[in-house]
Amino acid sequence: MSREASIIAALRGLADTPAARGLADDAAVIEIGGEALVLTHDAMVEGVHWLPGQDLADVAWKLVAANLSDLAAKGAEPIGVLLGFMLGAEDERFVTGLGEVLHEYLVPLLGGDTVAGGPPRTFGLTAVGRATHRPVPDRRGARAGDTLWLTGPVGAAMLGFEALRDGTAADSAAFRRPRPLLSEGRALAPLVSAMMDVSDGLLLDARRLADASGVTLAIDTAAVPISAPGDRRAEALRWGDDYQLLFTLPVHWKPPIPAHQIGEARPFAGSSLLINGTAPAPDDSLGYQH
Amino acid sequence: MSREASIIAALRGLADTPAARGLADDAAVIEIGGEALVLTHDAMVEGVHWLPGQDLADVAWKLVAANLSDLAAKGAEPIGVLLGFMLGAEDERFVTGLGEVLHEYLVPLLGGDTVAGGPPRTFGLTAVGRATHRPVPDRRGARAGDTLWLTGPVGAAMLGFEALRDGTAADSAAFRRPRPLLSEGRALAPLVSAMMDVSDGLLLDARRLADASGVTLAIDTAAVPISAPGDRRAEALRWGDDYQLLFTLPVHWKPPIPAHQIGEARPFAGSSLLINGTAPAPDDSLGYQH
Repeated sequence: MSREASIIAALRGLADTPAARGLADDAAVIEIGGEALVLTHDAMVEGVHWLPGQDLADVAWKLVAANLSDLAAKGAEPIGVLLGFMLGAEDERFVTGLGEVLHEYLVPLLGGDTVAGGPPRTFGLTAVGRATHRPVPDRRGARAGDTLWLTGPVGAAMLGFEALRDGTAADSAAFRRPRPLLSEGRALAPLVSAMMDVSDGLLLDARRLADASGVTLAIDTAAVPISAPGDRRAEALRWGDDYQLLFTLPVHWKPPIPAHQIGEARPFAGSSLLINGTAPAPDDSLGYQH
Repeated sequence: MSREASIIAALRGLADTPAARGLADDAAVIEIGGEALVLTHDAMVEGVHWLPGQDLADVAWKLVAANLSDLAAKGAEPIGVLLGFMLGAEDERFVTGLGEVLHEYLVPLLGGDTVAGGPPRTFGLTAVGRATHRPVPDRRGARAGDTLWLTGPVGAAMLGFEALRDGTAADSAAFRRPRPLLSEGRALAPLVSAMMDVSDGLLLDARRLADASGVTLAIDTAAVPISAPGDRRAEALRWGDDYQLLFTLPVHWKPPIPAHQIGEARPFAGSSLLINGTAPAPDDSLGYQH
Protein backbone atom coordinates (compact mmCIF):
# COMPACT_ATOMS: atom_id res chain seq x y z
CA MET A 1 0.00 0.00 0.00
CA SER A 2 1.38 3.42 -0.93
CA ARG A 3 1.93 6.03 1.72
CA GLU A 4 -1.01 8.06 0.43
CA ALA A 5 -3.22 5.01 0.37
CA SER A 6 -2.31 4.22 3.96
CA ILE A 7 -3.21 7.76 5.05
CA ILE A 8 -6.53 7.58 3.24
CA ALA A 9 -7.14 4.20 4.87
CA ALA A 10 -6.36 5.74 8.26
CA LEU A 11 -8.79 8.59 7.60
CA ARG A 12 -11.39 6.06 6.55
CA GLY A 13 -10.75 4.27 9.82
CA LEU A 14 -11.91 7.43 11.57
CA ALA A 15 -15.12 7.43 9.56
CA ASP A 16 -16.93 5.32 12.06
CA THR A 17 -20.58 5.62 11.17
CA PRO A 18 -22.41 3.17 8.97
CA ALA A 19 -23.45 6.15 6.87
CA ALA A 20 -19.89 7.10 6.10
CA ARG A 21 -18.26 5.65 3.03
CA GLY A 22 -15.00 7.37 3.79
CA LEU A 23 -12.89 10.01 2.15
CA ALA A 24 -12.65 10.60 -1.58
CA ASP A 25 -15.46 8.15 -2.05
CA ASP A 26 -19.23 8.19 -1.99
CA ALA A 27 -21.15 11.14 -0.66
CA ALA A 28 -22.26 10.78 2.96
CA VAL A 29 -25.87 10.16 3.83
CA ILE A 30 -27.29 11.12 7.22
CA GLU A 31 -30.80 10.74 8.54
CA ILE A 32 -32.38 13.79 10.09
CA GLY A 33 -35.99 14.60 10.82
CA GLY A 34 -37.28 11.81 8.61
CA GLU A 35 -35.22 13.03 5.65
CA ALA A 36 -32.02 11.63 4.18
CA LEU A 37 -29.46 14.37 3.81
CA VAL A 38 -26.65 13.90 1.30
CA LEU A 39 -23.33 15.66 1.91
CA THR A 40 -20.29 15.83 -0.31
CA HIS A 41 -17.05 17.81 -0.22
CA ASP A 42 -14.52 18.30 -3.01
CA ALA A 43 -11.37 20.39 -3.05
CA MET A 44 -9.60 21.73 -6.14
CA VAL A 45 -5.97 22.81 -6.20
CA GLU A 46 -4.27 25.14 -8.68
CA GLY A 47 -1.93 23.21 -10.96
CA VAL A 48 -3.49 19.91 -9.93
CA HIS A 49 -7.16 20.28 -10.81
CA TRP A 50 -6.95 23.21 -13.15
CA LEU A 51 -4.42 24.57 -15.61
CA PRO A 52 -2.37 27.56 -14.51
CA GLY A 53 -3.91 30.60 -16.14
CA GLN A 54 -7.29 28.96 -16.64
CA ASP A 55 -10.30 31.23 -16.25
CA LEU A 56 -11.40 31.06 -12.63
CA ALA A 57 -15.01 31.39 -13.72
CA ASP A 58 -14.65 27.92 -15.22
CA VAL A 59 -12.89 26.65 -12.10
CA ALA A 60 -15.79 27.84 -9.95
CA TRP A 61 -18.27 26.20 -12.31
CA LYS A 62 -16.45 22.90 -12.22
CA LEU A 63 -16.02 22.94 -8.44
CA VAL A 64 -19.76 23.28 -7.99
CA ALA A 65 -20.66 20.95 -10.85
CA ALA A 66 -18.41 18.15 -9.55
CA ASN A 67 -20.12 18.29 -6.16
CA LEU A 68 -23.60 18.49 -7.68
CA SER A 69 -22.69 15.43 -9.74
CA ASP A 70 -22.08 13.57 -6.48
CA LEU A 71 -25.58 14.58 -5.40
CA ALA A 72 -26.94 13.46 -8.78
CA ALA A 73 -25.50 10.00 -8.22
CA LYS A 74 -27.55 9.83 -5.01
CA GLY A 75 -30.73 10.98 -6.69
CA ALA A 76 -30.58 14.03 -4.44
CA GLU A 77 -31.84 17.53 -5.10
CA PRO A 78 -29.43 20.28 -4.00
CA ILE A 79 -30.21 22.35 -0.91
CA GLY A 80 -27.14 24.54 -1.01
CA VAL A 81 -23.37 24.79 -0.93
CA LEU A 82 -20.68 26.09 1.41
CA LEU A 83 -17.49 27.52 -0.05
CA GLY A 84 -13.93 27.57 1.22
CA PHE A 85 -12.47 30.44 -0.81
CA MET A 86 -8.81 31.42 -0.95
CA LEU A 87 -8.47 35.06 -1.95
CA GLY A 88 -6.08 36.00 -4.74
CA ALA A 89 -5.84 37.19 -8.33
CA GLU A 90 -8.87 37.15 -10.64
CA ASP A 91 -11.28 36.76 -7.75
CA GLU A 92 -13.95 38.55 -9.75
CA ARG A 93 -13.89 35.83 -12.38
CA PHE A 94 -14.40 33.18 -9.72
CA VAL A 95 -17.37 35.07 -8.32
CA THR A 96 -18.82 35.43 -11.82
CA GLY A 97 -18.54 31.72 -12.58
CA LEU A 98 -19.86 30.81 -9.16
CA GLY A 99 -22.90 33.00 -9.72
CA GLU A 100 -23.48 31.42 -13.12
CA VAL A 101 -23.41 27.83 -11.95
CA LEU A 102 -25.49 28.52 -8.83
CA HIS A 103 -28.06 30.31 -10.96
CA GLU A 104 -28.08 27.56 -13.59
CA TYR A 105 -28.90 24.89 -11.01
CA LEU A 106 -30.87 27.13 -8.65
CA VAL A 107 -28.60 26.36 -5.72
CA PRO A 108 -28.02 28.89 -2.93
CA LEU A 109 -24.64 29.67 -1.45
CA LEU A 110 -25.29 29.05 2.23
CA GLY A 111 -22.00 30.24 3.67
CA GLY A 112 -18.37 29.30 4.04
CA ASP A 113 -15.04 30.87 4.74
CA THR A 114 -12.60 33.18 3.00
CA VAL A 115 -8.90 32.86 3.72
CA ALA A 116 -5.60 34.31 2.60
CA GLY A 117 -2.88 32.03 1.27
CA GLY A 118 -1.33 30.40 -1.76
CA PRO A 119 -0.12 30.01 -4.41
CA PRO A 120 -1.11 27.37 -5.10
CA ARG A 121 -4.66 28.33 -4.40
CA THR A 122 -7.12 25.82 -3.07
CA PHE A 123 -10.89 25.99 -3.17
CA GLY A 124 -13.19 23.69 -1.27
CA LEU A 125 -16.89 23.16 -1.70
CA THR A 126 -19.43 21.27 0.34
CA ALA A 127 -22.75 20.48 -1.29
CA VAL A 128 -25.82 19.53 0.70
CA GLY A 129 -28.80 17.78 -0.83
CA ARG A 130 -32.00 16.03 0.04
CA ALA A 131 -32.49 12.47 -1.18
CA THR A 132 -35.60 12.08 -3.30
CA HIS A 133 -35.76 8.29 -2.94
CA ARG A 134 -35.03 5.73 -0.24
CA PRO A 135 -32.99 3.72 -0.01
CA VAL A 136 -30.47 6.25 -1.28
CA PRO A 137 -28.51 4.70 -4.16
CA ASP A 138 -24.88 3.86 -3.53
CA ARG A 139 -22.17 1.85 -5.20
CA ARG A 140 -22.58 -1.25 -3.09
CA GLY A 141 -25.80 -2.70 -4.43
CA ALA A 142 -24.86 -4.30 -7.76
CA ARG A 143 -25.75 -7.99 -7.89
CA ALA A 144 -24.68 -10.72 -10.29
CA GLY A 145 -27.05 -10.70 -13.21
CA ASP A 146 -27.61 -6.94 -13.14
CA THR A 147 -27.01 -5.00 -16.32
CA LEU A 148 -24.48 -2.12 -16.39
CA TRP A 149 -25.37 1.23 -17.94
CA LEU A 150 -23.86 4.61 -18.73
CA THR A 151 -25.91 7.77 -19.32
CA GLY A 152 -23.80 9.14 -22.16
CA PRO A 153 -20.42 9.39 -23.85
CA VAL A 154 -17.02 9.72 -22.24
CA GLY A 155 -14.01 11.40 -23.82
CA ALA A 156 -15.40 14.87 -24.42
CA ALA A 157 -13.65 16.26 -21.33
CA MET A 158 -10.36 14.77 -22.52
CA LEU A 159 -10.65 16.56 -25.85
CA GLY A 160 -11.74 19.74 -24.10
CA PHE A 161 -8.73 19.60 -21.81
CA GLU A 162 -6.40 19.20 -24.76
CA ALA A 163 -8.02 22.07 -26.64
CA LEU A 164 -7.59 24.31 -23.62
CA ARG A 165 -4.05 23.18 -22.92
CA ASP A 166 -2.95 23.55 -26.55
CA GLY A 167 -4.90 26.72 -27.25
CA THR A 168 -6.66 25.24 -30.27
CA ALA A 169 -10.03 26.35 -31.59
CA ALA A 170 -11.71 23.10 -30.58
CA ASP A 171 -14.54 23.25 -28.08
CA SER A 172 -13.33 22.91 -24.49
CA ALA A 173 -16.68 23.36 -22.76
CA ALA A 174 -16.98 19.71 -21.74
CA PHE A 175 -13.81 20.06 -19.67
CA ARG A 176 -14.47 23.56 -18.41
CA ARG A 177 -18.18 23.46 -17.68
CA PRO A 178 -19.37 19.91 -17.01
CA ARG A 179 -23.08 19.41 -16.43
CA PRO A 180 -24.20 17.44 -13.40
CA LEU A 181 -26.99 15.04 -14.34
CA LEU A 182 -29.33 15.96 -11.52
CA SER A 183 -32.66 15.20 -13.16
CA GLU A 184 -31.27 11.97 -14.62
CA GLY A 185 -30.08 10.92 -11.16
CA ARG A 186 -33.49 11.56 -9.64
CA ALA A 187 -35.21 9.58 -12.40
CA LEU A 188 -32.84 6.65 -11.92
CA ALA A 189 -32.71 6.57 -8.12
CA PRO A 190 -35.88 4.46 -7.60
CA LEU A 191 -34.72 1.82 -10.09
CA VAL A 192 -30.97 1.30 -9.82
CA SER A 193 -29.30 -1.38 -7.72
CA ALA A 194 -26.09 0.72 -7.64
CA MET A 195 -25.09 4.12 -9.01
CA MET A 196 -22.13 6.51 -9.01
CA ASP A 197 -20.86 9.36 -11.14
CA VAL A 198 -17.85 8.89 -13.39
CA SER A 199 -15.34 11.50 -12.29
CA ASP A 200 -11.99 9.73 -12.41
CA GLY A 201 -12.38 7.54 -15.50
CA LEU A 202 -14.98 5.00 -16.55
CA LEU A 203 -12.88 1.89 -15.95
CA LEU A 204 -11.46 3.06 -12.64
CA ASP A 205 -14.86 4.09 -11.33
CA ALA A 206 -16.43 0.87 -12.61
CA ARG A 207 -13.84 -1.07 -10.64
CA ARG A 208 -14.74 0.90 -7.54
CA LEU A 209 -18.40 0.05 -8.02
CA ALA A 210 -17.49 -3.61 -8.55
CA ASP A 211 -15.28 -3.66 -5.45
CA ALA A 212 -17.93 -2.00 -3.30
CA SER A 213 -20.56 -4.46 -4.52
CA GLY A 214 -18.38 -7.57 -4.41
CA VAL A 215 -19.07 -8.49 -8.00
CA THR A 216 -17.20 -8.65 -11.29
CA LEU A 217 -18.26 -6.07 -13.85
CA ALA A 218 -17.81 -7.28 -17.41
CA ILE A 219 -17.58 -4.33 -19.79
CA ASP A 220 -17.94 -4.47 -23.56
CA THR A 221 -15.84 -1.48 -24.58
CA ALA A 222 -17.36 -1.35 -28.06
CA ALA A 223 -20.71 -0.62 -26.42
CA VAL A 224 -19.37 2.41 -24.55
CA PRO A 225 -20.37 5.63 -26.29
CA ILE A 226 -17.39 7.91 -26.74
CA SER A 227 -16.97 11.50 -27.89
CA ALA A 228 -13.50 11.05 -29.34
CA PRO A 229 -11.86 9.59 -32.43
CA GLY A 230 -12.05 5.80 -32.52
CA ASP A 231 -8.32 5.38 -32.08
CA ARG A 232 -8.56 7.11 -28.74
CA ARG A 233 -11.21 4.83 -27.28
CA ALA A 234 -8.79 3.30 -24.75
CA GLU A 235 -7.87 6.75 -23.44
CA ALA A 236 -11.46 7.95 -23.33
CA LEU A 237 -12.32 4.96 -21.12
CA ARG A 238 -9.62 6.08 -18.67
CA TRP A 239 -10.12 9.83 -18.68
CA GLY A 240 -12.27 11.45 -16.00
CA ASP A 241 -14.28 14.64 -15.74
CA ASP A 242 -17.19 13.63 -17.94
CA TYR A 243 -19.58 13.21 -15.00
CA GLN A 244 -21.80 10.63 -16.63
CA LEU A 245 -23.76 8.36 -14.32
CA LEU A 246 -22.77 4.69 -14.16
CA PHE A 247 -25.44 2.37 -12.79
CA THR A 248 -26.71 -1.17 -12.59
CA LEU A 249 -30.27 -2.38 -13.07
CA PRO A 250 -31.90 -5.70 -12.26
CA VAL A 251 -31.98 -7.86 -15.40
CA HIS A 252 -34.74 -7.00 -17.91
CA TRP A 253 -35.29 -3.56 -16.38
CA LYS A 254 -34.89 -0.60 -18.69
CA PRO A 255 -33.74 2.88 -17.68
CA PRO A 256 -36.37 5.64 -17.80
CA ILE A 257 -33.94 7.98 -19.53
CA PRO A 258 -31.60 7.57 -22.52
CA ALA A 259 -28.68 5.37 -21.51
CA HIS A 260 -26.35 2.78 -22.96
CA GLN A 261 -25.91 -0.77 -21.74
CA ILE A 262 -22.17 -1.34 -21.56
CA GLY A 263 -21.89 -4.60 -19.67
CA GLU A 264 -23.18 -6.70 -16.84
CA ALA A 265 -22.44 -7.78 -13.28
CA ARG A 266 -21.29 -11.36 -12.67
CA PRO A 267 -20.39 -13.33 -9.57
CA PHE A 268 -16.94 -12.19 -8.46
CA ALA A 269 -14.36 -14.30 -10.24
CA GLY A 270 -10.85 -13.17 -9.36
CA SER A 271 -10.92 -9.75 -11.01
CA SER A 272 -13.31 -6.88 -10.26
CA LEU A 273 -13.29 -5.96 -13.93
CA LEU A 274 -13.37 -7.83 -17.16
CA ILE A 275 -12.66 -5.65 -20.18
CA ASN A 276 -13.93 -7.48 -23.26
CA GLY A 277 -13.59 -10.69 -21.28
CA THR A 278 -10.07 -10.05 -19.99
CA ALA A 279 -8.88 -8.85 -16.59
CA PRO A 280 -7.00 -5.55 -16.84
CA ALA A 281 -3.21 -5.69 -16.70
CA PRO A 282 -1.77 -5.13 -13.21
CA ASP A 283 -0.03 -1.96 -14.37
CA ASP A 284 -3.19 -0.46 -15.87
CA SER A 285 -4.18 2.43 -13.59
CA LEU A 286 -7.59 2.47 -15.33
CA GLY A 287 -8.02 6.17 -14.75
CA TYR A 288 -6.96 9.29 -12.97
CA GLN A 289 -6.25 8.89 -9.28
CA HIS A 290 -5.87 12.12 -7.37
CA MET B 1 -13.91 49.17 0.57
CA SER B 2 -10.81 47.05 0.15
CA ARG B 3 -10.49 44.65 -2.75
CA GLU B 4 -10.91 41.69 -0.43
CA ALA B 5 -13.94 43.25 1.20
CA SER B 6 -15.52 43.83 -2.19
CA ILE B 7 -15.00 40.18 -3.17
CA ILE B 8 -16.50 39.01 0.09
CA ALA B 9 -19.41 41.36 -0.47
CA ALA B 10 -19.86 39.91 -3.96
CA LEU B 11 -19.85 36.38 -2.55
CA ARG B 12 -22.38 37.45 0.04
CA GLY B 13 -24.49 38.81 -2.77
CA LEU B 14 -24.68 35.26 -4.11
CA ALA B 15 -25.88 34.00 -0.75
CA ASP B 16 -29.49 34.58 -1.58
CA THR B 17 -31.44 32.64 1.02
CA PRO B 18 -32.79 34.18 4.18
CA ALA B 19 -30.94 31.45 6.06
CA ALA B 20 -27.59 32.48 4.70
CA ARG B 21 -25.55 35.01 6.62
CA GLY B 22 -22.81 34.95 4.02
CA LEU B 23 -19.21 33.99 3.93
CA ALA B 24 -16.83 34.15 6.88
CA ASP B 25 -19.75 34.97 9.07
CA ASP B 26 -22.38 33.08 11.00
CA ALA B 27 -22.99 29.41 10.43
CA ALA B 28 -25.81 28.65 8.01
CA VAL B 29 -29.12 27.30 9.25
CA ILE B 30 -31.40 25.29 6.98
CA GLU B 31 -34.75 23.72 7.75
CA ILE B 32 -35.18 20.10 6.79
CA GLY B 33 -37.69 17.52 7.91
CA GLY B 34 -38.80 19.63 10.86
CA GLU B 35 -35.24 20.02 12.13
CA ALA B 36 -32.91 23.00 11.92
CA LEU B 37 -29.60 21.93 10.51
CA VAL B 38 -26.54 24.07 11.21
CA LEU B 39 -23.67 24.08 8.72
CA THR B 40 -20.30 25.74 9.00
CA HIS B 41 -17.10 25.60 6.95
CA ASP B 42 -13.63 26.80 7.91
CA ALA B 43 -10.38 26.55 6.00
CA MET B 44 -6.89 26.71 7.49
CA VAL B 45 -3.76 27.56 5.50
CA GLU B 46 -0.15 26.74 6.36
CA GLY B 47 1.73 29.86 7.36
CA VAL B 48 -1.50 31.81 7.80
CA HIS B 49 -3.45 29.82 10.38
CA TRP B 50 -0.65 27.75 11.81
CA LEU B 51 3.06 28.19 12.38
CA PRO B 52 5.39 26.44 9.93
CA GLY B 53 6.63 23.32 11.68
CA GLN B 54 3.69 23.16 14.06
CA ASP B 55 2.49 19.69 14.98
CA LEU B 56 -0.25 18.78 12.50
CA ALA B 57 -2.05 16.88 15.26
CA ASP B 58 -2.72 20.27 16.85
CA VAL B 59 -3.71 21.76 13.48
CA ALA B 60 -6.28 19.00 12.99
CA TRP B 61 -7.59 19.55 16.51
CA LYS B 62 -7.98 23.27 15.99
CA LEU B 63 -9.61 22.89 12.58
CA VAL B 64 -12.31 20.70 14.08
CA ALA B 65 -12.59 22.70 17.31
CA ALA B 66 -13.04 26.01 15.47
CA ASN B 67 -15.92 24.56 13.48
CA LEU B 68 -17.51 22.93 16.52
CA SER B 69 -17.28 26.29 18.24
CA ASP B 70 -19.45 27.73 15.45
CA LEU B 71 -21.98 24.99 16.21
CA ALA B 72 -21.74 25.78 19.93
CA ALA B 73 -22.70 29.39 19.23
CA LYS B 74 -25.88 28.07 17.62
CA GLY B 75 -26.69 25.76 20.51
CA ALA B 76 -26.27 22.89 18.07
CA GLU B 77 -25.11 19.37 18.75
CA PRO B 78 -22.65 18.00 16.18
CA ILE B 79 -23.80 15.38 13.67
CA GLY B 80 -20.52 15.01 11.83
CA VAL B 81 -17.78 16.61 9.78
CA LEU B 82 -16.47 16.46 6.22
CA LEU B 83 -12.77 16.99 5.60
CA GLY B 84 -10.87 18.47 2.66
CA PHE B 85 -7.42 17.03 3.19
CA MET B 86 -4.29 17.97 1.27
CA LEU B 87 -1.76 15.17 1.40
CA GLY B 88 1.82 15.94 2.39
CA ALA B 89 4.44 15.56 5.10
CA GLU B 90 3.49 14.45 8.61
CA ASP B 91 0.10 13.19 7.50
CA GLU B 92 0.13 10.63 10.30
CA ARG B 93 0.21 13.41 12.88
CA PHE B 94 -2.83 15.04 11.31
CA VAL B 95 -4.73 11.76 11.37
CA THR B 96 -3.75 11.28 15.02
CA GLY B 97 -4.97 14.71 16.07
CA LEU B 98 -8.11 14.34 14.01
CA GLY B 99 -8.88 11.07 15.72
CA GLU B 100 -8.30 12.65 19.13
CA VAL B 101 -10.62 15.60 18.62
CA LEU B 102 -13.35 13.54 16.98
CA HIS B 103 -13.19 11.06 19.84
CA GLU B 104 -13.17 13.80 22.46
CA TYR B 105 -16.38 15.33 21.12
CA LEU B 106 -17.91 12.08 19.82
CA VAL B 107 -18.21 13.44 16.30
CA PRO B 108 -18.03 11.11 13.27
CA LEU B 109 -16.04 11.86 10.15
CA LEU B 110 -18.71 11.54 7.47
CA GLY B 111 -16.53 11.90 4.38
CA GLY B 112 -14.66 14.43 2.34
CA ASP B 113 -11.90 14.57 -0.21
CA THR B 114 -8.14 14.04 -0.35
CA VAL B 115 -6.07 16.01 -2.84
CA ALA B 116 -2.45 16.52 -3.80
CA GLY B 117 -0.98 20.01 -3.73
CA GLY B 118 0.87 22.61 -1.72
CA PRO B 119 2.92 23.92 -0.10
CA PRO B 120 1.31 25.83 1.39
CA ARG B 121 -1.09 23.16 2.48
CA THR B 122 -4.73 23.93 3.02
CA PHE B 123 -7.25 21.97 5.03
CA GLY B 124 -10.98 22.55 4.95
CA LEU B 125 -13.61 21.27 7.31
CA THR B 126 -17.38 21.37 7.18
CA ALA B 127 -19.26 20.67 10.40
CA VAL B 128 -22.91 19.71 10.45
CA GLY B 129 -25.05 19.99 13.55
CA ARG B 130 -28.63 19.81 14.74
CA ALA B 131 -30.05 22.82 16.54
CA THR B 132 -31.34 21.98 20.00
CA HIS B 133 -33.47 25.11 20.35
CA ARG B 134 -35.60 27.28 18.07
CA PRO B 135 -35.27 29.95 17.14
CA VAL B 136 -31.60 29.20 16.53
CA PRO B 137 -29.49 31.91 18.15
CA ASP B 138 -27.67 34.29 15.87
CA ARG B 139 -25.86 37.60 16.18
CA ARG B 140 -28.77 39.76 15.09
CA GLY B 141 -31.04 39.65 18.11
CA ALA B 142 -29.43 41.96 20.67
CA ARG B 143 -31.79 44.74 21.80
CA ALA B 144 -31.11 47.98 23.68
CA GLY B 145 -31.25 47.21 27.38
CA ASP B 146 -29.86 43.69 27.03
CA THR B 147 -26.83 42.78 29.10
CA LEU B 148 -23.63 41.53 27.41
CA TRP B 149 -21.81 38.43 28.68
CA LEU B 150 -18.70 36.37 28.03
CA THR B 151 -18.29 32.75 29.12
CA GLY B 152 -14.67 33.02 30.22
CA PRO B 153 -11.31 34.69 29.87
CA VAL B 154 -9.59 35.82 26.70
CA GLY B 155 -5.83 36.08 26.22
CA ALA B 156 -4.81 32.49 26.92
CA ALA B 157 -4.51 31.69 23.21
CA MET B 158 -2.29 34.77 22.73
CA LEU B 159 0.10 33.57 25.43
CA GLY B 160 -0.03 30.04 24.04
CA PHE B 161 0.83 31.30 20.58
CA GLU B 162 3.81 33.22 21.93
CA ALA B 163 5.03 30.22 23.91
CA LEU B 164 4.86 28.07 20.80
CA ARG B 165 6.45 30.66 18.55
CA ASP B 166 9.26 31.39 20.97
CA GLY B 167 9.80 27.83 22.11
CA THR B 168 9.40 28.68 25.78
CA ALA B 169 8.26 26.28 28.48
CA ALA B 170 4.98 28.11 28.99
CA ASP B 171 1.75 26.23 28.31
CA SER B 172 0.58 26.59 24.72
CA ALA B 173 -2.44 24.33 24.93
CA ALA B 174 -4.97 27.17 24.77
CA PHE B 175 -3.64 28.10 21.34
CA ARG B 176 -3.04 24.58 20.07
CA ARG B 177 -6.09 22.77 21.40
CA PRO B 178 -9.00 25.14 21.98
CA ARG B 179 -12.14 23.67 23.49
CA PRO B 180 -15.47 24.38 21.80
CA LEU B 181 -18.13 25.22 24.40
CA LEU B 182 -20.78 22.87 23.09
CA SER B 183 -22.64 22.16 26.33
CA GLU B 184 -22.50 25.83 27.33
CA GLY B 185 -23.94 26.81 23.95
CA ARG B 186 -26.81 24.37 24.34
CA ALA B 187 -27.56 25.64 27.85
CA LEU B 188 -27.57 29.25 26.65
CA ALA B 189 -29.49 28.83 23.39
CA PRO B 190 -33.00 29.02 24.92
CA LEU B 191 -32.17 32.23 26.81
CA VAL B 192 -29.94 34.47 24.72
CA SER B 193 -31.14 37.28 22.49
CA ALA B 194 -27.91 37.02 20.45
CA MET B 195 -24.85 34.78 20.56
CA MET B 196 -21.60 34.16 18.69
CA ASP B 197 -18.23 32.64 19.39
CA VAL B 198 -15.17 34.83 19.79
CA SER B 199 -12.70 33.65 17.20
CA ASP B 200 -11.14 36.82 15.81
CA GLY B 201 -10.87 38.99 18.94
CA LEU B 202 -13.40 40.05 21.55
CA LEU B 203 -13.75 43.66 20.44
CA LEU B 204 -13.90 42.85 16.73
CA ASP B 205 -16.47 40.13 17.24
CA ALA B 206 -18.47 42.34 19.60
CA ARG B 207 -18.61 44.98 16.90
CA ARG B 208 -19.90 42.39 14.44
CA LEU B 209 -22.65 41.42 16.88
CA ALA B 210 -23.50 45.08 17.41
CA ASP B 211 -23.59 45.75 13.67
CA ALA B 212 -25.76 42.71 12.98
CA SER B 213 -28.17 43.73 15.74
CA GLY B 214 -28.19 47.45 14.99
CA VAL B 215 -27.26 48.45 18.53
CA THR B 216 -24.31 49.96 20.34
CA LEU B 217 -22.48 47.58 22.64
CA ALA B 218 -20.91 49.36 25.60
CA ILE B 219 -18.07 47.28 27.04
CA ASP B 220 -16.44 47.79 30.42
CA THR B 221 -12.99 46.39 29.74
CA ALA B 222 -12.17 46.05 33.45
CA ALA B 223 -15.03 43.55 33.69
CA VAL B 224 -13.59 41.31 30.96
CA PRO B 225 -11.83 38.31 32.47
CA ILE B 226 -8.39 37.87 30.95
CA SER B 227 -5.75 35.14 31.16
CA ALA B 228 -2.78 37.43 30.64
CA PRO B 229 -0.72 39.95 32.63
CA GLY B 230 -2.66 43.14 33.37
CA ASP B 231 -0.45 45.26 31.14
CA ARG B 232 -1.52 43.15 28.19
CA ARG B 233 -5.25 43.61 28.67
CA ALA B 234 -5.62 45.73 25.53
CA GLU B 235 -3.96 43.03 23.43
CA ALA B 236 -5.97 40.23 25.02
CA LEU B 237 -9.17 42.04 24.04
CA ARG B 238 -7.99 42.04 20.41
CA TRP B 239 -6.53 38.56 20.10
CA GLY B 240 -8.64 35.74 18.74
CA ASP B 241 -8.64 31.98 19.06
CA ASP B 242 -10.05 31.73 22.58
CA TYR B 243 -13.44 30.50 21.39
CA GLN B 244 -15.42 31.88 24.30
CA LEU B 245 -19.11 32.57 23.73
CA LEU B 246 -20.26 36.17 23.61
CA PHE B 247 -23.98 36.66 24.20
CA THR B 248 -26.69 39.06 25.22
CA LEU B 249 -29.55 38.45 27.65
CA PRO B 250 -32.72 40.40 28.32
CA VAL B 251 -32.19 42.68 31.34
CA HIS B 252 -32.42 40.97 34.75
CA TRP B 253 -31.93 37.53 33.22
CA LYS B 254 -29.00 35.51 34.51
CA PRO B 255 -27.03 32.90 32.55
CA PRO B 256 -27.48 29.26 33.59
CA ILE B 257 -23.72 28.67 33.43
CA PRO B 258 -20.74 30.61 34.81
CA ALA B 259 -20.27 33.78 32.77
CA HIS B 260 -19.15 37.37 33.17
CA GLN B 261 -21.19 40.45 32.47
CA ILE B 262 -18.92 42.74 30.45
CA GLY B 263 -21.29 45.40 29.23
CA GLU B 264 -24.69 46.19 27.80
CA ALA B 265 -26.54 46.95 24.60
CA ARG B 266 -27.80 50.49 24.01
CA PRO B 267 -29.73 52.17 21.23
CA PHE B 268 -27.34 52.71 18.34
CA ALA B 269 -25.61 56.06 18.83
CA GLY B 270 -23.06 56.67 16.11
CA SER B 271 -20.60 53.91 17.02
CA SER B 272 -21.28 50.19 17.17
CA LEU B 273 -18.91 49.92 20.06
CA LEU B 274 -18.18 51.96 23.16
CA ILE B 275 -15.05 50.88 25.01
CA ASN B 276 -15.24 52.28 28.54
CA GLY B 277 -17.58 54.95 27.18
CA THR B 278 -15.47 55.92 24.18
CA ALA B 279 -15.82 54.95 20.53
CA PRO B 280 -12.76 53.07 19.25
CA ALA B 281 -10.24 55.02 17.18
CA PRO B 282 -10.78 54.72 13.41
CA ASP B 283 -7.40 53.00 13.02
CA ASP B 284 -8.13 50.40 15.71
CA SER B 285 -8.61 47.08 13.87
CA LEU B 286 -10.08 45.66 17.10
CA GLY B 287 -8.87 42.18 16.28
CA TYR B 288 -7.54 39.75 13.78
CA GLN B 289 -9.14 39.89 10.37
CA HIS B 290 -8.28 36.97 8.10
